[in-house]
Formats: sequence, structure tokens, C-alpha cells
Amino acid sequence: MSTGFFGDLAPIPYAGPDSRDPLTYRHYNKDEVILGKRMEDHLRFAVCYWHNFCWPGTDPFGGDTFQRTWMAAGGDPMEQARLKADVAFEMFQILGMPFFTFHDRDIAPEGNTLAESNANVNAIADIFQRKMEETGVKLLWGTANMFSNRRYMSGAATNPNPDVFAYAAAQVKNAMDVTHRLGGANYVLWGGREGYETLLNTNIKQELDQLGRFLSMVVEYKHNIGFGGAILIEPKPQEPSKHQYDYDVATVYGFLKAYGLETEVKMNIEQGHAILAGHSFEHELHMAHSLGIFGSVDMNRNDYQCGWDTDHFGMNVPELALAYYEILMAGGFTSGGTNFDAKLRRQSIDPVDLIQAHVGSADAIARGLKAAAEMIEDGRLKSFVHERYAGWQKPENAAILRGETSLEALAERVHGQHLEPQPVSGRQEYLESLVNLFV
Amino acid sequence: MSTGFFGDLAPIPYAGPDSRDPLTYRHYNKDEVILGKRMEDHLRFAVCYWHNFCWPGTDPFGGDTFQRTWMAAGGDPMEQARLKADVAFEMFQILGMPFFTFHDRDIAPEGNTLAESNANVNAIADIFQRKMEETGVKLLWGTANMFSNRRYMSGAATNPNPDVFAYAAAQVKNAMDVTHRLGGANYVLWGGREGYETLLNTNIKQELDQLGRFLSMVVEYKHNIGFGGAILIEPKPQEPSKHQYDYDVATVYGFLKAYGLETEVKMNIEQGHAILAGHSFEHELHMAHSLGIFGSVDMNRNDYQCGWDTDHFGMNVPELALAYYEILMAGGFTSGGTNFDAKLRRQSIDPVDLIQAHVGSADAIARGLKAAAEMIEDGRLKSFVHERYAGWQKPENAAILRGETSLEALAERVHGQHLEPQPVSGRQEYLESLVNLFV
Amino acid sequence: MSTGFFGDLAPIPYAGPDSRDPLTYRHYNKDEVILGKRMEDHLRFAVCYWHNFCWPGTDPFGGDTFQRTWMAAGGDPMEQARLKADVAFEMFQILGMPFFTFHDRDIAPEGNTLAESNANVNAIADIFQRKMEETGVKLLWGTANMFSNRRYMSGAATNPNPDVFAYAAAQVKNAMDVTHRLGGANYVLWGGREGYETLLNTNIKQELDQLGRFLSMVVEYKHNIGFGGAILIEPKPQEPSKHQYDYDVATVYGFLKAYGLETEVKMNIEQGHAILAGHSFEHELHMAHSLGIFGSVDMNRNDYQCGWDTDHFGMNVPELALAYYEILMAGGFTSGGTNFDAKLRRQSIDPVDLIQAHVGSADAIARGLKAAAEMIEDGRLKSFVHERYAGWQKPENAAILRGETSLEALAERVHGQHLEPQPVSGRQEYLESLVNLFV
Amino acid sequence: MSTGFFGDLAPIPYAGPDSRDPLTYRHYNKDEVILGKRMEDHLRFAVCYWHNFCWPGTDPFGGDTFQRTWMAAGGDPMEQARLKADVAFEMFQILGMPFFTFHDRDIAPEGNTLAESNANVNAIADIFQRKMEETGVKLLWGTANMFSNRRYMSGAATNPNPDVFAYAAAQVKNAMDVTHRLGGANYVLWGGREGYETLLNTNIKQELDQLGRFLSMVVEYKHNIGFGGAILIEPKPQEPSKHQYDYDVATVYGFLKAYGLETEVKMNIEQGHAILAGHSFEHELHMAHSLGIFGSVDMNRNDYQCGWDTDHFGMNVPELALAYYEILMAGGFTSGGTNFDAKLRRQSIDPVDLIQAHVGSADAIARGLKAAAEMIEDGRLKSFVHERYAGWQKPENAAILRGETSLEALAERVHGQHLEPQPVSGRQEYLESLVNLFV
Ligand SMILES: [Co+2]
Ligand SMILES: [Co+2]
Ligand SMILES: [Co+2]
Ligand SMILES: [Co+2]
Ligand SMILES: [Co+2]
Ligand SMILES: [Co+2]
Ligand SMILES: [Co+2]
Ligand SMILES: [Co+2]
Repeated sequence: MSTGFFGDLAPIPYAGPDSRDPLTYRHYNKDEVILGKRMEDHLRFAVCYWHNFCWPGTDPFGGDTFQRTWMAAGGDPMEQARLKADVAFEMFQILGMPFFTFHDRDIAPEGNTLAESNANVNAIADIFQRKMEETGVKLLWGTANMFSNRRYMSGAATNPNPDVFAYAAAQVKNAMDVTHRLGGANYVLWGGREGYETLLNTNIKQELDQLGRFLSMVVEYKHNIGFGGAILIEPKPQEPSKHQYDYDVATVYGFLKAYGLETEVKMNIEQGHAILAGHSFEHELHMAHSLGIFGSVDMNRNDYQCGWDTDHFGMNVPELALAYYEILMAGGFTSGGTNFDAKLRRQSIDPVDLIQAHVGSADAIARGLKAAAEMIEDGRLKSFVHERYAGWQKPENAAILRGETSLEALAERVHGQHLEPQPVSGRQEYLESLVNLFV
Repeated sequence: MSTGFFGDLAPIPYAGPDSRDPLTYRHYNKDEVILGKRMEDHLRFAVCYWHNFCWPGTDPFGGDTFQRTWMAAGGDPMEQARLKADVAFEMFQILGMPFFTFHDRDIAPEGNTLAESNANVNAIADIFQRKMEETGVKLLWGTANMFSNRRYMSGAATNPNPDVFAYAAAQVKNAMDVTHRLGGANYVLWGGREGYETLLNTNIKQELDQLGRFLSMVVEYKHNIGFGGAILIEPKPQEPSKHQYDYDVATVYGFLKAYGLETEVKMNIEQGHAILAGHSFEHELHMAHSLGIFGSVDMNRNDYQCGWDTDHFGMNVPELALAYYEILMAGGFTSGGTNFDAKLRRQSIDPVDLIQAHVGSADAIARGLKAAAEMIEDGRLKSFVHERYAGWQKPENAAILRGETSLEALAERVHGQHLEPQPVSGRQEYLESLVNLFV
Repeated sequence: MSTGFFGDLAPIPYAGPDSRDPLTYRHYNKDEVILGKRMEDHLRFAVCYWHNFCWPGTDPFGGDTFQRTWMAAGGDPMEQARLKADVAFEMFQILGMPFFTFHDRDIAPEGNTLAESNANVNAIADIFQRKMEETGVKLLWGTANMFSNRRYMSGAATNPNPDVFAYAAAQVKNAMDVTHRLGGANYVLWGGREGYETLLNTNIKQELDQLGRFLSMVVEYKHNIGFGGAILIEPKPQEPSKHQYDYDVATVYGFLKAYGLETEVKMNIEQGHAILAGHSFEHELHMAHSLGIFGSVDMNRNDYQCGWDTDHFGMNVPELALAYYEILMAGGFTSGGTNFDAKLRRQSIDPVDLIQAHVGSADAIARGLKAAAEMIEDGRLKSFVHERYAGWQKPENAAILRGETSLEALAERVHGQHLEPQPVSGRQEYLESLVNLFV
Repeated sequence: MSTGFFGDLAPIPYAGPDSRDPLTYRHYNKDEVILGKRMEDHLRFAVCYWHNFCWPGTDPFGGDTFQRTWMAAGGDPMEQARLKADVAFEMFQILGMPFFTFHDRDIAPEGNTLAESNANVNAIADIFQRKMEETGVKLLWGTANMFSNRRYMSGAATNPNPDVFAYAAAQVKNAMDVTHRLGGANYVLWGGREGYETLLNTNIKQELDQLGRFLSMVVEYKHNIGFGGAILIEPKPQEPSKHQYDYDVATVYGFLKAYGLETEVKMNIEQGHAILAGHSFEHELHMAHSLGIFGSVDMNRNDYQCGWDTDHFGMNVPELALAYYEILMAGGFTSGGTNFDAKLRRQSIDPVDLIQAHVGSADAIARGLKAAAEMIEDGRLKSFVHERYAGWQKPENAAILRGETSLEALAERVHGQHLEPQPVSGRQEYLESLVNLFV
């Protein structure tokens, strides 16, 4: 029986590119085959729990605006959690999206002890299990919230107090167990409090060692329980902490190398976090691919004029096309997918806004995917890059990268052959115009 | 015989803290002993060649303002280079600073071939050698300019054209030879063009492999010729390129790990570049220390409201105190030092401005060093941090970092002992007030 | 009778510059005379209500950390408000500061109707009135919170719904009445929701007209009731809104001119807001002085690496010295003062942290004031600026500014006199070094 | 006779949306009628002189990369200026664009005196006059370069030296004369040096008064000579100066009001400058329209991750659609137009890159214009905004804006009618999805 939250809203149909109704899919046609794969299998859309069902519309200067029935003060928390689960699965079905994602604390209330909290999570997971069977909706990933409770104010794995580290370990164990039980395709860690507020009270070396050990235990536990999903880290440079250790893809790569985890852990890359770190989204995707650690995507958009994590719904097709071009060049998703880590503006208080936002963004993404596929089929972009580096295929140059030369040998070559290499146009504007043929 | 450029300006005396003349040293007293070491040996000040003697005062919207005699159009370039060297050493002596630094192209004009360019560099190096003996001024580091000439517009080591890579190798070989000959304490690489303008024409993986191989050759050559100095990389996130691979300390660390160079290469950290990368200066210093790759410092200051590399002279004593606190905590400089990578504002067109800027900044730095030393002698800061992490000394917690625990074991501990760790004040405002006792 | 919240903490004594106890005043010596005025009368320190007594330590990713007794869920709101008032006045006295500031909603809970809310505010104001008489603490300014409640989510004065405009008017009337009754020296408006989230649903012209009319009514009401204090606007560029109309001092000046209010309204300038707008604090102060609208100061500091309003306690003495130099050059405060609009870091959970933060910052400010006074007494800065523009005193140049010349006339002068004006050094590094003599 | 610079490149044809050749116009079809007006008349494209023909490809760390024949060292400057003019008009015709723009110093070399410089400018203007007649290309605007020469290093109108002010006046007089003679549709002022590097040597009030007087003289002279074009100011927040007085549209509006010029001067708005000021491009356009000072557009794009003025060619269609939506809502251009103030990346060294960049961007703009027109024809966006503010049409609310109410009266209304206004969804995601139907 329906909760009635979404009124009589029917599942969103695919209506084709000529539709002028923004509440239809004009481009997201899940069974349409692009580059030999169904669109649904390319994109692997996931709806997140936290922004949609837990965030009440507050901001640092304002109270709740949404006032969902399951958030009412004084209600029974487990009752509210069950109602929330009902609404969530109704939304998944209206949208026709195949996956969802959650933090442990999103789905069930914190108890008086960790045991009680775990029991609450597990009880809702039972409900999820049943609903997932009924609806076919799957879990893209689970994660543990180790940033909201005050016990984690100085960090979880990086807390100066080892008891907090232990507490976090125990919490993650349960979140991994639940994710495993629900057939999650990945398990994610985002370290919002794994960083510092001031260097004056911080020992970074100590904290990095704690964080490295914690992550190693997560990987060990994954193998112990036979969890087949990927372990993903989600980089973010700052906010809520002044500095977070998982700053960006390149920083996390160095961290993984330092603790020998670079083959065990991949990246969950968020557009907004890329922007906050001073990068374009496509940079982070390309970099992760180059370093062999691309995993999944938290799709959203940061307002370019705001210095905090705005988590807008992604709507800019040319930017999305460049992102999916990088994803396709990286071979596409395996266990990963496209998680909408985006929230309504707090003035968008109607239930239909939740649906509209996902539909609009999914459609923009689908257009981006189609454009990226056309860019690949056209082939000019890829050829251009290939030609640009073609000189490195020559034997004497390939030998350089194999480590068979030295400064002395190359100096001799330059002087002996009177090398005077001439610059060649980078043709950026041509390439940008080329992209515009397809977006 | 004097060039007369600085008029009758005498060497700057130490006049003590009560002096009201900004053209005296009030705090930089080179023989004063701080924490058991002479101030000169702590700070190891170096004057750079490029900002002082090569930059004509241009900016992206304006022509030259300085119009130094040795920059006049139509002059004989080698004659001008010799005059420049004379003025430079006069300035080193007026300031009484023990070191200088240069790029190969700063000191001598580019020739028609690399051989000619090298000959020009070597001819000026001969002059340097003589002047260094006469004056006792030493070389903190040398480096090669592989970013100004158009042949490097698409990168030096990361150029798509292997011939440019070879050319860069040949140029670096000569710059290392010269640095070695002049007894340089370090050799620096800054990769202003080792990055990209657009991902559309870029293969990051290919370029990183090129850069890794190039750096390996530099390290190999260092050992071949018996150069005892450190190899230093100077991180900068962007400018002139949209993105530079040596983004910040953490990124370079990952790069060094990927190519097995983390024990061979250290960091030359610039305040302005830290700011452009979204970090405080002390963050980069602390991070380099934590990762075991702290080397040297390019001292300057970026205007917090400008988004480009402003290279102001550092003048803010509390900030400098925090920087030297990190440097002292890292054990101080070994081969590294404090290089003034700072330039006059382009309206500061008088020769005395060159002197005043260095004196003012050196004095602010000296105050910072003295304050940092007092912070260490006071001991409260260090104790606070030590106490904060003290729990990790307990055997059962030390075991965690040694890798002897698991999520399961820690979960048992939490549940078995009913752990409910309570938050403890981070006391940031107390610590900031404590710092203010000394600056 | 004490609430016991601060334990046995005694009023903070002045202990002189040699004190090594950060919980004493080393520089803030309220009766010390600087440039002919008591330090207390120069600085006019005010403690704010919201950060200290209302904010629970939450951030966008975290729950409350402070858990003050008067914030407990389920308590009687008016009882809690009375306890809060007791604690507040205890804190004012421990600090020995002469003023406080508040929003209406800080001091008393919102009721079911505006009438009820007003009654609550007025009841606490009665308590304030008594406590102010007893302690001598005065009100620097009051203001109305028109940004937290969801009714204001789309603006207060700029709301598309005129009923919200009316509601805001009614709320401000009461806040002004209370401020007047308590002898407030100023009344402040900060328009956190007077802006937009997206231009797609916004008519800026309409909203500016609403805002202009609202402000005019405030000014009219001030005169009606004989309120002698200044009306102050506090500029901020964004956050919580994507764009706020009171962006910075120069923008507000244009707004005031457009609605004929430039002689009626002055600026309350916050350091953190200046930074978020891309300006230095001293820029905003100097600009307000130049435009004749300098009023008061919200003292804090934004972390230079964070893109949101961090409201740190100001601790950097050189920056504070430059700020108070501008304030002194503007003639110092008349009705305005130095309001600590700064909050503890959320990890600073001990009551003593509240005290320490204010003491540390007050002391840094006092040093800044003393340094600024020395800069003025020294006179070299001021003379330098005076000399730089001295040419404008000549009759033929003074005539230019009086409007007695034209392009034609000046062209004739240039050609006739063969004018070739030569650049003169701006001497920025000298001036910065000069400042460092005093900070 | 052709210079041969562009080889055998023919004028760019319109080839329709199905063209896969980026060197054709796919959307810019100058005679196509959109909303009742030819596309050429809507867009009024102009090619700028400085980026295309004067900038040699330098950046703060690199030398020239373009090496155009007319830039060769040692050449005859007037001969080079004539060659440059030939190439420029060849480019205008290849592109088929109706307008161009220039600074006086772009088109002719500086002489030994201002009289000589003016003569040089006038000589090239003679050539322009002939070429304009021959080709039908028109002048969108002229301007004077008062930022490159060292005499202006401390400002032109705002220089502390009144002789520089006079010199600038004489230079502007000539630039206005030339613009007038060539039938320019506007005259532009951009104040790159009208700002400061440090407040320590600056008197803002004095400088604003100078700037106000200067601008007044420009307006007076315009009327004297009967120049019918608009006077335009181009805002930019900083770069090259640390702070520029013409910070953004709202700031310039305040400045115009202060000197009584708000009906005489309009805005030339640049996308990149909007971004540097912390605004979206559409914000600045909407704001200028709201304030009644919208004039013209400098079209480009700033890289969102770079903190300096990157002047990329605009290529993002959704962003361009929002910009032209604002322009159309403002009534479209009258004297203004779309000036490509964009430069090649310095690696784009081939002549064809100049053409490709303009074609690609013009086409993206044309798509933006067509999308904006569809948004207007659809009407839902406009209706939504209209409905949102509809309450203000009611008599009792219209009276508020007419100034017929007071805080007291409105408070009575709220209390008397028990107003409890309820929030209404802002529907941002719906509106963004609506826009995506058309871009
Ligand atoms: Co995310
Ligand atoms: Co986010
Ligand atoms: Co440097
Ligand atoms: Co720099
Ligand atoms: Co404030
Ligand atoms: Co603030
Ligand atoms: Co422009
Ligand atoms: Co620009």
C-alpha cells in the first residue's frame, strides 16, 4: 500500500527527445543500446538516502524547510525509519532507477549503545532485503556515517583517542556486514572528520598511520567475509574539516601507495568535491583512470561561485559529456555506478521536486552519455591525441621510457643531431569545437 | 669597482629591535645563537636571480617598468649578463646574505643552439666562481628554465615530442654540471609546463611516465657525477599551465612513490604555491615532514585575494613564526635554506626597493624564527599535542598500529567493554592564544 | 547567585605584556589611554549572543557538540532562555566587556504567533534591563533574525510574497522597540536571505525595490520613535544565499544611493564577509570611510583556505593593526564598536574555551590598536600618502577636480608643455617594513 | 592583394546543423530571423584587435609563441602596423563578422611624444576608414590603452601625479576623436590601473574623485563633438591591480550615482570578469538590466579553476543560452554587441586556429541565442517568475512599494489578520530542467 507521499505520481515514462514535459525522460531510455550496452547498464543510476530522506532542508543559517512526516519531533524513531523506507522504495520505482545507496545512520536511529544502533540498522536492513526482492532495486553501496555524532568530532580512524578508533572499527564492521548481506556492489568510505581543524593540536604522521591501518583492516575484513564488491574512498579536500586527508585523487593515490593498498581500493569521485579541490570533474576521472584506481561516481554539481559543497543536481550537458567521455575511455563502470549525491535546494519543498530533480539530471546525464558515445564513434578526438604522442612509438624513444637512456646519452643525441624541435599547435579551440558537434 | 647601481648604499647593519629605521636589521642578527645554532645557519638566506635581475616589471597587461641598464634593447647580451652578475654580487654583499639561486637562462642569454646556450651559461659560471671565492657567497641551488622558450610550450619532460624531452635532458645535464661545479647545495626542478592546458589533447598516464623517467635520470646523473646536494621538486598547482602535475606536497609524494623516488627527492616548498593549492604554508611544511620529504623553502607570500602567483615578500610575523615552528619541528634545514622567491611590486622601481624588500622580509622571518624558538622552549604546544595522542602509547593501542588487530577484534572490545568514548576539547583558541604570547 | 556554568572562573585581570598566562589580558588594559582616549572607549568590545549561547556546535555534516544545559531537548524554552541570560551576563562580567549584541530569536523562543514571539522577546528584555542596570553592561546593537525560520526561506523584505514582507516589518518593529528600550547604540540589518538561489525564479529589480522600501521604513520608524542610534547594514556576498544583495560596502553604497538612504545608514563590517567578497578587511573599512558610511565592526577572521563563513576569533596582530589603523583614520567609532562575531571551533567544548577565545582575541586586538596608534604617532605612513598626492594641491590641478577643465584643455596642456610624466616608486615594501616596526 | 597569412582559407560558409566540419557555421546563419530580427542584428559580432593581432602568445612565465611576421623585432613599426591591418581585415572577411574593436595602442606604435603617437594612430585610422568602406565592416567600439605604458603604472585617471591625469585625458581625447571619425557605435573605458596595489600608499577617496571627474569630462566631450555612441565602462575586480575600482556592475553603479553619471554611462560586461568578481555572467547581465545600465558584452569564458583572466573562447552552450536569455529580456543590444574578447591558448600557434576559435565560439553563441529565443517563445519561465511575484500587484501591496505604509501599519496588519505566510516551493530543479528542453 502506498504511503501517499508522492500523491498519484506514476512511474516516469520515456517520452523521447521531442517531449516538452520536463517530468518525462527525453533521453534516458534504459533499454536503448549505446556502444553495445544498454543505457541502464552504462549509467547504473543510484538514488541516495541521505539527501532525499534524511536532510530536513537546514543550512548553517536556517532551520528545516521540508518537514517530512517521518521527521516530526517526538515521533517513534523506528516507526519513522520504516515509513522512510516505504517512501524511499516508492521513489525508486517512480524513477525507475536500479540502485540505491545509504549510510548506516540514514536508515535507522542511533541507539543508546552501539549494539542497539546496530540492531536498529539490521532491522531496517531486513525490510530492505524484502523490498529489494520485491522491486528488483539493488544496492550500489553502503557506508558508515562516522562524522555526525560528537564522538567523532576529532576524527574516527584519525581520532587522538584510540577508543574512538575502536568504536569506528566496530561500526564499520556492522555496516560492511549489512552491505554484504544486501548484495552491495561496493563499500564506500568518506572521511569528513579524517583531517584537522588546526595544525596546532595535530600530528599528521600519527593520524595518517591510523588511517592507513584502519583502511587495511577494512580490506582484510572484506576478504575475510568474502565480500566481492570494491572498497571505494571518496576524496574531498575540506568541509566539514579545514583539511581532509583524502584531498583529491592524486593525494589518495599517494596515501594508498604509502600503505600498500593501491590495488585494493578505488575512487568514488564526486563532481562537487573535484571543484572544491581546484579541479574539473573530468580531471579527477582522467587522473583516477591514469593511476588505475577509477571506481565510481557521486554525481552532482558544485555552484562555481560558492566555496562550500552545494551538491546541486548536475544539469550541464557539455560538462556531463566530458565526464562520461572519460568514464567510457576508462572502460566504463564495473562495480561502480552513477550515484545522485545531490540535494534539492532548500526552497524546493514539494515532493514532486524530489522526482523532478532526478529526472532532469538523469536526462542531462543520458544526453551526456550519448554525446560521449558519438565522440568516440567519430574518433577524431582520440586520433588527435594518439597522433600527438606518436613519436614515442619510435624505437629510440620507446627506449627512453624503458629506462635505457641517460641525461648524458640524450645530451649527446641533441648535440650530435643538432636537434631544434619546433612547436606544434595544440589546437585546443578546434578540439573544443569538435566536442560541440556532439553535445 | 662598483657598478654604481646601488649608489652609496653600505652593507645593512644589525641595529637591534629598538631601531626605527626600516633599512636596518632589527632582528636578523646572523651570529646570534638560537636553540644552539647561529641565526645565519638556521635560516640560510638566499637571494634569487630571476626576480631581482631578470624580471623587467612586466605583467600580463603592462610593459617593463624597471628599465635596468642591463636590460636595454639592442645591448650586447653577454656584456649585459656580466654587468648583471656584478650588480647581483654587490646586492648579495649589501644584504650580507650567504647564498644565491638561479636558473640557467637567468644568468646568460640563450644562443642559437643548445651548445651556444651552454657555453654562455658556463662563461658566466666562471665569473660566479671567482666572485664566490672573493665574497664567500655560496650557491643554495641551481635549476634549468624549461618553461619560457616556445619549444617547451607543451611541456619539457612531458612534451608529446620526444625530441623536446631529449633537449630538456641535455639542458638539465648542463645545469646540473654547473650547479655541481659551483658547489651548489641542492638542485631544483619546477615543472611550470609539466601539466596541461586541456585534457582534450592530453594523455596524463603517458606524460606521468615521461616525467617519472626524466626525474629518475636526474637522480641517476646526480649519483654518476657525485653531486652531493639534494634533488628538490617545487610543487605548484597551476600557472602557467591550467594544471601542473607537481600540484602540492601530497601529490608529489604519490608521484615519487609511483616511480620509486621517494627517498631520492625532497620538496622545495613555496608559500605562494601552497596558497594557490588551497593550503596554508605550514600545512605543506608539516605534510612534507610527515612524509619524510622536507627539503627547502621558497619564501614569499601570495596575496590572499589574488588568484595568481603574486610572489610578495613575506612580512607577516605570526605566519612566519608558524612556518619556522614547522621547520624547526622537522629538524631544521640540512642542505635546504630560505630562498627569497619574491619580487618587488612593479611600481617599486628604485634600486633601494630591492634592498628594502629583502631587509624587511629577512627581519620579519628572523622574528618568526625567534618566536618559533620561544614556542619550543616554552614547551606547552608540544606537550599538548603529545598528551592528546598519549592513549596510543598503551600496549593494546600500539598493537593496533602494528597491525595486530582486526575489525572483528575491535568490535568485540567495543561491545565487551561497553566503550562509549567521550569527546575532549580540542582547545584551538587556547593554542592560538598561546602562540600569540611569542609572536 | 551564580549558575555555576563557568565554575570558579574569576574576572580576567590585566596582567601586563610579560604575563605568560593566556587567560590574562596582556594588552587589553581598559583604562590605559591611547591617543587621548581610554582603550575601552576606543574598542567598545561587545559579546554576541548567538555564537556563544545559541549555536550548539553543529555544522553541515555534524550534530551538536556543546550540549549546554539550556539547550536540552524537552526543556521549557522560556526557562532555558532565562538560564541562558544568567550565563550570558556571568560571561560578560568575567570578560569585563562593556557591551553585548543579540538577535530577537537568540534570546527567546519563537511562539505560535508573532504576538507570542514578541511577548517572549519582551519578557527576556525585561530581565536584560534589570541585569544591565546591575552590571553596567550596555547594548551595542540589536537585530532581528529573519533568516532561520522557513517562512523566510525565499527572503524577508525581498520575499515574492508580500505577506512575508509584512511579517518581517512587524518583526523588525518589535526588535527596534526592544533595542530602543534597552538603550541600544545601533540597530543592525543583515540580509542573509535577501538575495537569490537561482536567477531563473528571480526578478532582481522587483526585489531591490522591496528592499529599498523596507529599509526606508526602518529609517522612518527610527525617527518616529526617536531612536538615536545608527541604522547599520552588514554586507555579506553570499551564504546562506547564492547571492546576497548587500554584497560588499561598495555595492551597498550604490543601493543606498539608489534609494536616497546614504546619509541615514552606515556599515557594520565583518572581516570574514570582506574575505568572502574578495576583499581585505582593511579595504572594506577604508572604502566605507571614503564613502562616508563607516559605522561598526563585526570582528572575526575567515580561514583563508575555506570558502564559507568560518567566523574564527581574530588572532593575527599585523592584520588587526591594519584594520584599526583604518578605523582610527576614519575617526574611530562613534556609535559603533568591536563586536566579537566569532564562534568557537566545534571541538572547543569546555566553558573555559568561551572565555579563552574572547580573551585571546581581545588581547590581539588591543595590540593591534596600540600598533595602529604608534603608526599614527610615527607619522611616516600618513606623510608618505600625503606627499604622493601633493601635486593635486597646485591651483591648476585642484581646478581639475573642481570641474573647471575639459579633455580639450588638458590635451592642449600636454601638447603645449610637452608633458612626459615620469613614474615614481610606490615603495610598497618600504611601507610594509615600516608597519612591521610597530606590530 | 592578400597577405597570404591565412593561406587559401575561404570565407566560412553556413553549412547547417548537420555539418560535421567544425570549420563551418552550423548555427550562425546571419540572415536567419529569430524573434523577428536577423541573427546578425541580434548578435552584432565584433572581432577584437588586441588578442588576435597584438598579443604574441606570452604569459607570465613564457615568451612569445606566435611569432607573427608583423611582430618581428627590428621591423619598421608603422610598416608592421599596416601589415597587421591588412591581415585583420582579411580575417574579418573570412569570418564574415560585421564589427571590430581596438585600443589605440593596438593599431599603431607609441611614438616619442603623444603627438607622434596620435599621428601614428590617425594614420592607421585612415587605412581603416578606407578598408571599412570597401568591406562594410564597422567599428563596434574604440578605446584607449592606459595600462601598458609605465607612465600609467600607478593609474591613469587615478594617478597621484596630475600630469599623468592630463596625459590620459589627452590620449582619450584622440581615441574618442578616432572612434567618432570611424563611426564607432560606442566608446569603452576599462580601468586596469584604476585601482591600487596596497592601501598603504593609497587615498581611495581622492582617487575616486579623480576617476569621477575624468569620466565626467569624457561624457562632456562626447556631447561636445556630437558623438552619438554610448560611453561604456567595463568592470573587472582585479588584475592587473590588486583591486580595481570598477569591481563589478553593482559597484560601478554606485560610482556612477555618486558622480551623477548613471544615465550617461552603460556597462560592457565580460564573462571572465564576472567570474573573477564571484558572479555568474548572467548575474552581471541581469543586474545591469535591473539598474538600467546594460550596454554591451565582451564575450569569453574564464576557466573556473584558474584565478586569473583566462579569456577563453566561450563554448558552453547552456551557459551562453542563459546569457542571451538575459540579454533578450533586457531588450537586446542597441548600440552594443558581442565582442569576442577571447584569445587563443598560447599553444594554438597556427593561423587557422584564429579562425577556428571564432567560428566555434560564434556557433556556440548562435545556438545559445536560438535556445534563449525558444525559452522566450515557450513562455513557461517568464510566467513562472511573473506568478511568483503576482501578490505585489494587489492594491494593498502595490501601496507598500509606493511608500504608503510603515512598520507600524504593517505590524497592525500582521497582528490584525493573524498572518502566517506559508512557504512556496521555489522549484529550481524544475526550472533548470525546463531550460534543458531548449539548450
Ligand atoms: Co559524495
Ligand atoms: Co558533496
Ligand atoms: Co618558487
Ligand atoms: Co611563485
Ligand atoms: Co556578522
Ligand atoms: Co560571518
Ligand atoms: Co574585456
Ligand atoms: Co578578460
